[in-house]
Amino acid sequence: MNKNSSNIMALAPNTSNKRETICIFGTGDFGRALGHKMIQSGYPVVFGSRSTQKSSLIPKDAEVLSHAEAAQKAAIIIIAIQRQHYNFLTSLAEILHGKVLVDVSNNLKINQYPESNAEYLAQLVPGAKVVKAFNTVSAWALQSGTLDASRQVFVCGDDMEAKQRVMDIVRALGLTPLDQGSLLAAQEIENYPLQLFPMWKFPILLSLCLTAFFFFYCLIRDVIYSYVYDNKDFSFFIAISIPNRICPILALILLALVYLPGVLAAIIQLYRGTKYRRFPDWLDKWMLCRKQLGLVALAFASLHVLYTLVIPIRYFVRWRMSSQIISQALNNKTEPLNNTYVWLSDSYLALGILGFFLFVLLGITSLPSVSNNVNWREFRFVQSKLGYLTLILCTAHTLVYGGNRFLSPSSYRWYLPNAYMLSLIVPCIVLVVKLVLIFPCLDKPLTRIRQGWERNPQYS
Amino acid sequence: MNKNSSNIMALAPNTSNKRETICIFGTGDFGRALGHKMIQSGYPVVFGSRSTQKSSLIPKDAEVLSHAEAAQKAAIIIIAIQRQHYNFLTSLAEILHGKVLVDVSNNLKINQYPESNAEYLAQLVPGAKVVKAFNTVSAWALQSGTLDASRQVFVCGDDMEAKQRVMDIVRALGLTPLDQGSLLAAQEIENYPLQLFPMWKFPILLSLCLTAFFFFYCLIRDVIYSYVYDNKDFSFFIAISIPNRICPILALILLALVYLPGVLAAIIQLYRGTKYRRFPDWLDKWMLCRKQLGLVALAFASLHVLYTLVIPIRYFVRWRMSSQIISQALNNKTEPLNNTYVWLSDSYLALGILGFFLFVLLGITSLPSVSNNVNWREFRFVQSKLGYLTLILCTAHTLVYGGNRFLSPSSYRWYLPNAYMLSLIVPCIVLVVKLVLIFPCLDKPLTRIRQGWERNPQYS
Amino acid sequence: MNKNSSNIMALAPNTSNKRETICIFGTGDFGRALGHKMIQSGYPVVFGSRSTQKSSLIPKDAEVLSHAEAAQKAAIIIIAIQRQHYNFLTSLAEILHGKVLVDVSNNLKINQYPESNAEYLAQLVPGAKVVKAFNTVSAWALQSGTLDASRQVFVCGDDMEAKQRVMDIVRALGLTPLDQGSLLAAQEIENYPLQLFPMWKFPILLSLCLTAFFFFYCLIRDVIYSYVYDNKDFSFFIAISIPNRICPILALILLALVYLPGVLAAIIQLYRGTKYRRFPDWLDKWMLCRKQLGLVALAFASLHVLYTLVIPIRYFVRWRMSSQIISQALNNKTEPLNNTYVWLSDSYLALGILGFFLFVLLGITSLPSVSNNVNWREFRFVQSKLGYLTLILCTAHTLVYGGNRFLSPSSYRWYLPNAYMLSLIVPCIVLVVKLVLIFPCLDKPLTRIRQGWERNPQYS
Repeated sequence: MNKNSSNIMALAPNTSNKRETICIFGTGDFGRALGHKMIQSGYPVVFGSRSTQKSSLIPKDAEVLSHAEAAQKAAIIIIAIQRQHYNFLTSLAEILHGKVLVDVSNNLKINQYPESNAEYLAQLVPGAKVVKAFNTVSAWALQSGTLDASRQVFVCGDDMEAKQRVMDIVRALGLTPLDQGSLLAAQEIENYPLQLFPMWKFPILLSLCLTAFFFFYCLIRDVIYSYVYDNKDFSFFIAISIPNRICPILALILLALVYLPGVLAAIIQLYRGTKYRRFPDWLDKWMLCRKQLGLVALAFASLHVLYTLVIPIRYFVRWRMSSQIISQALNNKTEPLNNTYVWLSDSYLALGILGFFLFVLLGITSLPSVSNNVNWREFRFVQSKLGYLTLILCTAHTLVYGGNRFLSPSSYRWYLPNAYMLSLIVPCIVLVVKLVLIFPCLDKPLTRIRQGWERNPQYS
Repeated sequence: MNKNSSNIMALAPNTSNKRETICIFGTGDFGRALGHKMIQSGYPVVFGSRSTQKSSLIPKDAEVLSHAEAAQKAAIIIIAIQRQHYNFLTSLAEILHGKVLVDVSNNLKINQYPESNAEYLAQLVPGAKVVKAFNTVSAWALQSGTLDASRQVFVCGDDMEAKQRVMDIVRALGLTPLDQGSLLAAQEIENYPLQLFPMWKFPILLSLCLTAFFFFYCLIRDVIYSYVYDNKDFSFFIAISIPNRICPILALILLALVYLPGVLAAIIQLYRGTKYRRFPDWLDKWMLCRKQLGLVALAFASLHVLYTLVIPIRYFVRWRMSSQIISQALNNKTEPLNNTYVWLSDSYLALGILGFFLFVLLGITSLPSVSNNVNWREFRFVQSKLGYLTLILCTAHTLVYGGNRFLSPSSYRWYLPNAYMLSLIVPCIVLVVKLVLIFPCLDKPLTRIRQGWERNPQYS
Repeated sequence: MNKNSSNIMALAPNTSNKRETICIFGTGDFGRALGHKMIQSGYPVVFGSRSTQKSSLIPKDAEVLSHAEAAQKAAIIIIAIQRQHYNFLTSLAEILHGKVLVDVSNNLKINQYPESNAEYLAQLVPGAKVVKAFNTVSAWALQSGTLDASRQVFVCGDDMEAKQRVMDIVRALGLTPLDQGSLLAAQEIENYPLQLFPMWKFPILLSLCLTAFFFFYCLIRDVIYSYVYDNKDFSFFIAISIPNRICPILALILLALVYLPGVLAAIIQLYRGTKYRRFPDWLDKWMLCRKQLGLVALAFASLHVLYTLVIPIRYFVRWRMSSQIISQALNNKTEPLNNTYVWLSDSYLALGILGFFLFVLLGITSLPSVSNNVNWREFRFVQSKLGYLTLILCTAHTLVYGGNRFLSPSSYRWYLPNAYMLSLIVPCIVLVVKLVLIFPCLDKPLTRIRQGWERNPQYS
């Protein structure tokens, strides 16, 4: 505990006549941490426990009484005990009648029980007003004051006034209450702290699969082929050269996959002639994880940039360059400047730089604090206009990189095209379809459909 | 609709006795979306419509009645119809008397009508309490739950209590209400969603003009001059070399323009001997868009870094280097290490790196979530001290880059100096004036003026 | 003042009957700015002043009366005068009885007086309800509307209702009130605006000391040694080469110091057999500044990346490379490709890239707006799992960079090992101890201790 908190501690007696008494059932870790924090914030706290002996762990300014006595002293009771011990509360039903019971419990698995702990509590003590809260807060963070992680406390409950009172306590503790509606939302709130980046699962899984595929593809083309035909050992390509092929490919494909569902949705709406029918489930889910897909794509693009910029530092590249120069010098002939190469080399680099720059801009605007400060029109402008421009630049970057190698037979080894050619398929499809959708003959009906017009209206 | 929302849907009946009934006039897109969201959040919703036939689009749990019947069922009525149809509300004036009317409408153009829609509504139904809200929220975002863009709902109205009730609803929907004052603020709130980065217009326009100017300047000096005198085709400079000249120039000029208004303001205050007179309008506007100017400058600086780092990968650069080496090898002479060059080259790179690093730091602290976590003294320290240090480093970077070329006649083509020399004018002026202002004989009176002292006090 | 604010100004008369009158004692800079803002937000404002002559500086719509008259007109009185003039308020004690006095004052030094200004005010006027607020807001920012810095207003006070009323005013001004508890918190709130990055002091001081040490260390080994033995002037190493040695060393050491306190805490808990005893003070403080340590480490890592990427552009590097190539060409011998070197060079670069990438990811998740959007489990996952992975990658990067040079005698000059070897000590210790702690025989008791188990329980 730092000086800070002991400081605040001192003010408890002073304010105790201002704030209402809070009762906490359970002297476990979380109960104690919460009690400690509440005393700091000026609430008189009374613990309800089986053993009323006051241990040294319980905050000094708190009382410890039996459950029944403690409950009588307060209108708000925090139930900081585990679900499997809830049933003893039925014996206190009379005392708990009309009181606010705050369920702070969590489960070990998602959807562990058929009903949420808070609803179970409400069934056990029907006369009480059950509010779910505090389950997403860490006991350790409460106590140490290092609430680096979320300060948000999700609150739900059927009784509006009880919920309001709990939210006031949350605010007084320096946390941010978020009203999540009625007690039926408790299931979701209880699942929340068990989740591990649920929206990121699909993008990360997809990119892992694609990475594995392209890794073996490049391994076969670049390492094994050379080994078999030229008996050269290029296994060190695994460290930088192959990753630097995979990263841009994945960045481009994932970026295109961000814009594909929008294009598909437009086609579906045009075909159906209405926007009032639900999209298929997979499309809905896909649309909801577009931001995550885009950010994973940005991660791959950033890696590609780093891998590319270290090229001139690599020992292999330096060695290859100096041996080329030496052989030219020894043969006494200089290669003339190839103007086409100069143009291709400079413009694919320039396209890549501009594409990456816009991509980073898109990434920055997706930061919560930035996107909170733009209005809807600005957000749409950035995410749609700038997004498509990014896709166009990155696709052009890849096309110009290919240059005149597309048709050269030497770039097909074992009939396998260069990996970057595969990466162009999805973005090109998206861009072509989008271009078609911009034509007035399709854009006009689409705009009208999106404004609510229906080809075959369902009601007069 | 994902599983999530259907889940929450289920809880409506349960809470219906807790939340007050809301009436929505208009069954259009936005009205339905808002109704849907309100039902999800536990509000009983009744729609007021010309045709009371219930279409399949209207949320299942909502009633549809005539306008008059619907209005009688609720104390809060959302007017989700277009301004041009408002006049029918006069016929309902009696029923609407004392009710809270929430105007959610938007216009198609900025300042389309002389008075805001909300004020027009207040004139039509003088007995009602009109509150403006929800106009910045997108119907689509409400329905899909993907409120990536702003969750902020601007609320204004003359009746404090009515406003408070609407803000409670906003909070219950999981959005963030922002009290904007009386109904006169409605005009601004209605213009808000039509704006497209209003603060960014001047910085972006300015940088586009400067970019165009320097592009042609460099084109003449680097491409056309070479073509005319040496008959060499350097047109490929357009891809990378010329952008990499323009970007640092713009970054430096714009960064200096961030600090110029502060210096001008100090001079004006010193001259006037008081801080209590308004600055000219152009200076006020300039000061308000300094952050945007700085961020555009940072964008150009980042592009400059990327363009610079790809230099060794460019085919042209590699070709030039290897032909130089080969010619040296063939002539059997090695260039000795020039110690001055080594120092100049290393120190201009080091200055550039440090300048860019501080610049990025400034950019990060301007992120809303970061600047919210620093106090005023810290913010001033970063933006003023670190800002000037950045300007000094970047100016020094350019000066050292110039090195001993400033006076070399070969760097003047057609009497045009190198472009980077032009870029040094504004930053050098800013730095020199700032240096002068730091002298005690000027700094002391300035500090006193800023603390409220006046040379010629206007009142005893 | 921009068009915007004058606009809002106009609405004052309209709302004056809605909002309660506010009295401001003192017509100084801050008092006027606050009055101006309050009038904009629709509050009728009356100033209390010694001279009731209305100067041109006072907002037009405000009245100026004597202190006693002004105080009688309002229930809330802002005390915008300096602490040393507070004593005249005792004469007004009768009028001020029961009123809300808002103390907005700041001091010039931290802990300047034994008690906070707000507590002093409460002693002087015992009948009034004193609330501390607004002291962190800048007068200039209030007036110009450019509240780029914190919009947070810390509020504290012993009377809950008075505090609530002040917080409502704060909200109405468009600022965010933060309830800090009872009036004892005023001391801290008054110190807050005087602080300059208090959490950053230790990390920055530490890194400055380490930088100085390693700078001289490298200077001796790389510049002075060469000068003494080979009579070569490598003083230009100061610009880039030496910084590029110091930066990665500091990044690695500081990153390891982020994870060292966690490891120490685990050892202490294991040794004590309980988690219920406080850690030593230094460990607590260290743990609280881990985030800052990590961000300073990230800054050094970013500089290292920039310094490394400009290597091929440096004149010295180009000169050295071309002279090597020329001498090889002249001697007509080509160096064969060393496969070990290729592997070492490519894999240390790849490890560095991946390590830096993860490091930046850690940095992004530490942005307040991002960490607010992850739950506790996700935050732990990122900061602990990804953090250790970053440390492993960066340590491996340094080890592979060393390669087979560790034992080569040529890398010891004056018996001093290469600087990077020193940097490996702390991270290797952290990683080894962490590895040991993962063994089940230690991990199991540690997990149980952290769940609340005690080896020697202190109470039955």
